Order: sequence, then structure tokens, then C-alpha cells
Amino acid sequence: MFQIVYPEAVERWGVFEIEIHAHVSGNPFLGTYFLAEFTGIQEKKQISGFYDGNDRFRIRFMPSFEGEYSFRVMSGMAGETLEETGGTFQVNPAGKGNHGPVRVKKPYHFRYEDGTRYDPVGTTCYAWIHQEEKLQEQTLQTLRSSCFNKLRFCIFPKHYRFNFREPELYPFEGEAEDFGILTWDNFMQVKFSTKSRWDYTHFVPEYFRRIESRIADLCRLGIEADLILLHPYDRWGFAKMPRQAEELYYRYVIARFSAYRNVWWAQANEYEYMPDKTEEDWERLGKLLMEEDPYGHLRSIHNNRRFYDHTREWITHCSIQRVDMYKTVEETNEWRSRWGKPVVVDELCYEGNICMDWGNISGEELVRRSWEITVRGGYTGHGETFESPDDILWWSHGGTLHGSSEPRLRFLRELLEQVPGDGLRFLDWTEAGIEGGGPCGEAEGEGTEELYRIYYFGKTCPARKRFVLPKGFEYEVDVIDTWNMDITPQKVSGNRFMVELPGREYMAVRICRK
Amino acid sequence: MFQIVYPEAVERWGVFEIEIHAHVSGNPFLGTYFLAEFTGIQEKKQISGFYDGNDRFRIRFMPSFEGEYSFRVMSGMAGETLEETGGTFQVNPAGKGNHGPVRVKKPYHFRYEDGTRYDPVGTTCYAWIHQEEKLQEQTLQTLRSSCFNKLRFCIFPKHYRFNFREPELYPFEGEAEDFGILTWDNFMQVKFSTKSRWDYTHFVPEYFRRIESRIADLCRLGIEADLILLHPYDRWGFAKMPRQAEELYYRYVIARFSAYRNVWWAQANEYEYMPDKTEEDWERLGKLLMEEDPYGHLRSIHNNRRFYDHTREWITHCSIQRVDMYKTVEETNEWRSRWGKPVVVDELCYEGNICMDWGNISGEELVRRSWEITVRGGYTGHGETFESPDDILWWSHGGTLHGSSEPRLRFLRELLEQVPGDGLRFLDWTEAGIEGGGPCGEAEGEGTEELYRIYYFGKTCPARKRFVLPKGFEYEVDVIDTWNMDITPQKVSGNRFMVELPGREYMAVRICRK
Repeated sequence: MFQIVYPEAVERWGVFEIEIHAHVSGNPFLGTYFLAEFTGIQEKKQISGFYDGNDRFRIRFMPSFEGEYSFRVMSGMAGETLEETGGTFQVNPAGKGNHGPVRVKKPYHFRYEDGTRYDPVGTTCYAWIHQEEKLQEQTLQTLRSSCFNKLRFCIFPKHYRFNFREPELYPFEGEAEDFGILTWDNFMQVKFSTKSRWDYTHFVPEYFRRIESRIADLCRLGIEADLILLHPYDRWGFAKMPRQAEELYYRYVIARFSAYRNVWWAQANEYEYMPDKTEEDWERLGKLLMEEDPYGHLRSIHNNRRFYDHTREWITHCSIQRVDMYKTVEETNEWRSRWGKPVVVDELCYEGNICMDWGNISGEELVRRSWEITVRGGYTGHGETFESPDDILWWSHGGTLHGSSEPRLRFLRELLEQVPGDGLRFLDWTEAGIEGGGPCGEAEGEGTEELYRIYYFGKTCPARKRFVLPKGFEYEVDVIDTWNMDITPQKVSGNRFMVELPGREYMAVRICRK
Repeated sequence: MFQIVYPEAVERWGVFEIEIHAHVSGNPFLGTYFLAEFTGIQEKKQISGFYDGNDRFRIRFMPSFEGEYSFRVMSGMAGETLEETGGTFQVNPAGKGNHGPVRVKKPYHFRYEDGTRYDPVGTTCYAWIHQEEKLQEQTLQTLRSSCFNKLRFCIFPKHYRFNFREPELYPFEGEAEDFGILTWDNFMQVKFSTKSRWDYTHFVPEYFRRIESRIADLCRLGIEADLILLHPYDRWGFAKMPRQAEELYYRYVIARFSAYRNVWWAQANEYEYMPDKTEEDWERLGKLLMEEDPYGHLRSIHNNRRFYDHTREWITHCSIQRVDMYKTVEETNEWRSRWGKPVVVDELCYEGNICMDWGNISGEELVRRSWEITVRGGYTGHGETFESPDDILWWSHGGTLHGSSEPRLRFLRELLEQVPGDGLRFLDWTEAGIEGGGPCGEAEGEGTEELYRIYYFGKTCPARKRFVLPKGFEYEVDVIDTWNMDITPQKVSGNRFMVELPGREYMAVRICRK
């Protein structure tokens, strides 16, 4: 015997939620007590529910089309249907700013499901959802006025430098080992907990409820939530869950979160740092995501120094950390070709001043790397690690930004959004009609029959550059100061011309056929 | 019948010259008409003379020891001695600033022959000796007040962008093809001359006389003359001489120049751009240099994008051009290990603003690369390519400097000269006792039992760095701003300490055991 509550309508790509009141015997987290089949004119989907505590189950569904939908809720266990009920609801047109989930526009770019282009400019706040409420609100405030349209963060709490506090809640019922006072100095001595005791079959619904409310907050801001499912910065043991626990966790998270259109699945941060996991594990879990997520949200796996084989079927796009300290992102175009998928450089070294060399470049250098990525047909990712007396660093805790790169990334994003077609592809200077070197991004995809290029000069400081472009056309030229964020048109005529430049770093030239 | 004129004395490592008045039949440039055997208490050397025009032959000898020397001059051809005369002279102690020729201090550094350390900080003016007199004098004036102690330049005239004028003189008798007016635009169309006619068996003594007077000028300034014997920037055909002509030229140059203690032999600039030459040619010519030069001056060969195998016996040190546009010099330590010889990065991209990407980095970037090279145990090389209304660019023509790197290279050179022992070797950060990354140079060689290190942070901006050094000692710490050129001592105690830094680019830390 169970009762259901559900709304009469939802917008397209919104979260339609059926709340179920039921008392079940046994562990309500195990198996699937409730599932529903949703039927609209253009789709039919079977969706698993999840237990949310207090005799409440929920089934969440994201409709991909407008119109009338019906559903049947089935109560069951191990495939055996015990009881059924159902209903209908209306799917209204998507509201303002709702373009549906992000999809790969093959081979190298992204679009929302409604066809609107999505040019990711992401940032990272690994553990922001594990900070106190007030700080989380501040993070959202910062994001609201920033240029970022993707946020990477971890589902599990984080144990790492600057991240020693116990979280308020744990994802599972149980007890955490008391490590005493953790400091920068003894951090390296802390190993995975052996005394923590977790019941991996009993999730703490409040823990996940908090996360999904943040996913929803981000969704309202038009920000994709790049959820990191597993990560190695751990002292509780969550990085070493048994296989069955892991799969239960994956299914639980899929059931709870996947109806949020802005969810992306990031299988790991720095997967190589989880030595207990084999490639087979990552493959199995990746396939589980691919098969169990009813909506096919984007899926990736993030490296430290050894790239994963991103050609694998379950991987939708390459989530990259630079592997060389000096040639950091200048192989973006090669990565694209190697793996045949969109390249998102989520870690290119953060803007900041901490001692670790993954977190102490200048704003100028972060912006330079972002431009190199962009003209090579990839997408950049921001992060910030400035020391702070309160130990609040954007990269992990959120809060406010202290660096200088964000306005320049906004400028970059705006320029990128003006590029026609799907986005940019890399042209080597030998084929880009420019004398003396310099990478070039050219618009690719439908609607790019007319030449549209952005040449980026990075750390070189030419006083002029000569161009030889296809004959028979006239061109519009803009000189772009990527750091000072201004765009100056320069008159040229014919297809062979010289563009005058100021002879300083970080300049670009945009050339479009008239 | 011949007459000789010679001075009574010369300083150690000076040029002792015997002038011979003789009229010979046949071509006086072919074969060896005159040679001399020099005998001192500690050395005996046979030295070939050369024809200098107007019935004058010269035999030049650089004595390596003090004291009385005697010599016998033999006139001959094809090994047959026709006539003999001789004399004695005194070799006095070396004058101020005369430390003898530069030698390799195995495996990775340099010393003058008198044991004084030589830390090269070179620059490049490829064609300065082919410019008008006044400009040459200005170049010497600039060098006099600069930090540079090595200059790379070509023996043959140069044909390249910014270098289209005919030289006043040619090295050989003959006639140059008239290519008309050469410009930036038609430059690429100009191929090697087919109409030029040269008699490679008749050198133009005045041409070589001018060069040696500049070698002597440089010697007075304490600057090593890194002579480029062959290069590809040619429209006259000198890059395509027949094999016998080439060997004759090598021997002539050796006979004329090798008594100047500051001569280095650079076999080629960008050897790969001389496609007529095989590796066998370079090897044969390299061995010729090694065997014919009586003083064993330093010998190298310079690449464009493909490194030569610098392990070859005739190569004394590696003259490197960076081969990657982004990871430019950060493999200096690996090059050292690979070839087991000193690494001199003669081309790391010049400071300037020309369109070509080998000549348009900022002063900051040139200095950054120079520091990376230095802490990795190599030696840097400067060059400058700023556009100028008069088309005078330091890199080729000399003149004056317009950039900002030279004072910073002076600062670097001064710091390097303070390093004890032979110079620096690279320590990876995992063995350098520093937290969070950053390259480190450590003093190596005799007299470096006490820890002496320079950590360089380049483009990273740490606000502090923690060090853990060998126990039981106290250390002196200096924070070095490599761009603003100041050194600030910082008090620390014990072997584990934190060094506070300003959180900006281009900082270094020097740590010495007290």
C-alpha cells in the first residue's frame, strides 16, 4: 500500500518528481522498491526511484519533449511487481534559459539539446557543498556574477591540504575515525582510515538532498554541474569502497540526480591516485553510468599525469589535466585528433600563490593558456588558489574570487560565442596564411563556409603580421588585446595585407570574410 | 729565397706572428708554402702559414707557456722542405684579462686555460663584420658596456630577411650574380646563385683580415668569438662549395684565426638547412677542425629543429637551438645528461618584435628562459630582433640594444659567477628538499662540499615555500627578484624552514650552508 503525490505540470527538461509515501520492510536502499514508466508521444522511459528517508521514496523524471505524459508507478523488488498506480501530467515549453541537457556536437563541440551552442568555460570548487551554508551562498553569489557556465565539484567530502575539517554530514551511516588535529605537517602521514565504520547500504538522504539542492541552484544560474563521483582525497575510506557498495552508490546517485538537466558525470579526479582501482573498474563503472543514466548525461574521467584512453565508448568528452609543467595546453589540437572527442582542459594550473605548482600561476598565464586551448579547438577550465587567512580557497571551498583572470575569461567566452558554426578547429600556421608562425583557430561546422579565424600570438610580441588569404575576397580584421579586453578594427584591402600590432604579449587577430 | 720579420716577445696566449716576404710561383693559396716548428720548454708545435697577398705570408702561433721559444721556418710544398731559417723569442706572462683559451671543464662547464672559470653569457650578431665600419665600431661599443662574453657570428656574408645588401668584399675572387633589388617579398624566390663565379682557390686576404681584426677587438674586450664557418643564409653559393674548396677554406681559416685565443669553431648554423651536406660531410669537416687546429679550440654544430648527435668526439660542447615553441629550454638538464657535455643554448628565441616566431619574445620571457637554462646546469644565449626604420637589428647587424633583457642577464651572470665549484647542476624538486615543485640548481665540482643551491620559480607565483634540508646545519637564504634585480636576505633557523615570497613571477631563492 502506497500513496503518491505529484504535480500537474512541469517544463520540458525540468524535474518531474513523484513523491511516494510507503513503509517497506527490509533495507529500503537496497534493490528498487519503486520505479515508474513514463510515456509521452515521443518517448517512453523506465525510471528507478530512490529512498529519501522517513518512509519517503521519490521518482524523478526529466521529460525531453512537450505535451501530455502518463506514468505508471510500480512497487516491486527484484523485478516482481506488487502494486501499481499511475497518472498524467503536462509538459510545458522550456522556460527562459532552459535549453535542455548539454550534448556532444560531434566530433569536437557541445550543444544543448535544443540546439543552442554551449561553449564551456568552467571553474572548480571541489568541496564547496561541504562548506557551511553561508559560504555556499557566497559561492553561488560569486558564480551568479561570473562568466562560468560549468562547475566541477566532488560528491564525497575532501581530505587534502587546506581541507582538514570534518564534514557536517557523511554520505553513509556509520562512524568516522578520529584522526585528531590534522595539519599541513602531518597531512602526508594520514592514510586511509582503518577504524572508520560505514554501512554502505544505508545512505544519509540529507547528505544527498543538500547536493541536489545545489545542483538545482546551479541549474537556475545556467551552470552545468560536473559531478565528481569518486576521488582520492580521502581519509574516510570512500575512495576504497567495496565493488558492490560502489555500484549501489552509483545507482543511488543516478536515481537522485540524473533528472537534473545540468548534471555531468566525472568518474574520478586524478584517477591514477586511486591505486586500488584498475582500468577494469573504471570501465565497468563507466559502462554502468552509460547504461543506467536514462538521459545520457556527459561522462568523463580526469587524469593526473597519465591520460586515460578517451576513445572508450562510455567517455563522451576528454576532461584533461595538463601533464607537462611547461608545454601545458599547446597539444590541445593533438589531443582532439588523438581521441576524436571534445577536449575540456579542466586543470591547466590554477591562478594563485600556493606552494604547489598546480596552483600558482598568474592571471596572465591562466588566460594565455585558455586562449591557446581555445584556438586549438578545445575548452578551458578555471580555478583559483590564493592563500587566505581564513583558509578559504576558491578551488576547493568557493567563496569569492581574488584573481584577475575571470573578466578575461568572460571576454574570451563572449568572443568564442560569436564564432559561427560549432566552434573552432586548429590550423597550423603553415596552412593558416600567416607569415612567421602563430596558432590559429578557424570556425568549423555548418554555417562556416566563409572564412572566420582567430590568430593568437600568446607570448610572442610581433609588431606586425602579414597575411595571405584566399583570393577574390575582402576581409574584416580586428586586433584583439586579450588581456586589456579591447577590440580594434583595422582596415585592410584585398587578400594579402599586413596587420599592425602593438608588439606586446597576449594579442590576437580576428579575420572574417566580408 | 725569403725574408722573415718577427717580434722579440709576445705574451702567453698572445698571437706571435712571423711575416714572410717571398715571391712564389703558382697559386700561393694552394698547399702549404711555409710552416714553422715552435719549440718551448713545455711544448713543440708545427704551425702552417697562410698567404696574405702582396707576396706576404704569415705564420701565427699562440704559445701556451711562458719562457724562451725558438722556431724554424721551413718553406716547402707537398712536404718537401726547400729552405729554412729560424729565430727565438720570449713569451712573457699573460697580461691583465688574458686567461688563455676557453676549455671544457669536464663534463659540463668551462674554464679558461689558466683555471679561471668561464661562465658564458653569449649574444649573436650574425653579420656584424659585413656591416659598414661605423656600425661595427658601434657594435663594439655596445659590447664593451654589456654583460656578454661570447659573440656568435658568421664568416661568410648573410642573405636573409633584413639582410639583402651585397657585402663590400667577398671571401673569394670572382663575381656575384646580380639579383636586382631584393625585398622581403621576393626573398623566398631567390635560390642559390647559378651565375656567380668564384675561384675558390683564391681567397681575398682583405676579407679575412677584417674578420681577424674584429676577433682581436673582441679578444681585448674579453669576448669569445664563436665563428660560424658555414651557414645556409646564402645567395652566392658559399653554402654549396665543392668539397675540396671547403677543406681549403677550413685550412685557410684555421691558419689565419686559430692563434687568437678567443676563437671558437661553430661548424654550422642550422645545419639541417644545408641539404647538400650529409652527416658524413659534417663529420669529416669536424674531424678536420679537430686535427688541424693546433690549439684545440672549442667546436660545435648548431641545429634548427633536429639536434645533432653531440656525443661525437669532435664536438666539445652542445650549441643548441630550442626545438619546441613552448617547452623551449626546460630540457636543458636532460640534454646535458644525453650528450654528456656542456650545453650552451645559443638560440632560445630572441627578444624582439619581428613577425618570425624565433624573434619576438619579451625581455621577461628571454630572462625567464635564461634562468631555466642556468638552474638546469646549462648556459644561455641572447639575441635581439626589434624592427627598426634603418633595418639594423642587433641579431644580425649589431649596433645598439633596444630590449630590456641585457641588464638582467648581467645580474644572472654575476650570480652565476658567485656559485662555487664548476657551476650548477639540476636537482629535481623531489630531491631538492622543496615542497610543491620548482627547479633547482646546485653547485657542483670541487669546492662544493657545502650545500649551495638556487631555486627558480619562473612563471609560478608562490607566496611561500617550505624547505627541508640536510640536518645539523644552519643556512643562509636570499630571496632574489630576477627581474627587478634585487637580493633580500631572509633569516631562517635550522634545516626546516619556510621562506616568504612575494607571490609574483620570476623569483628565485638562494640557499647556502653557513
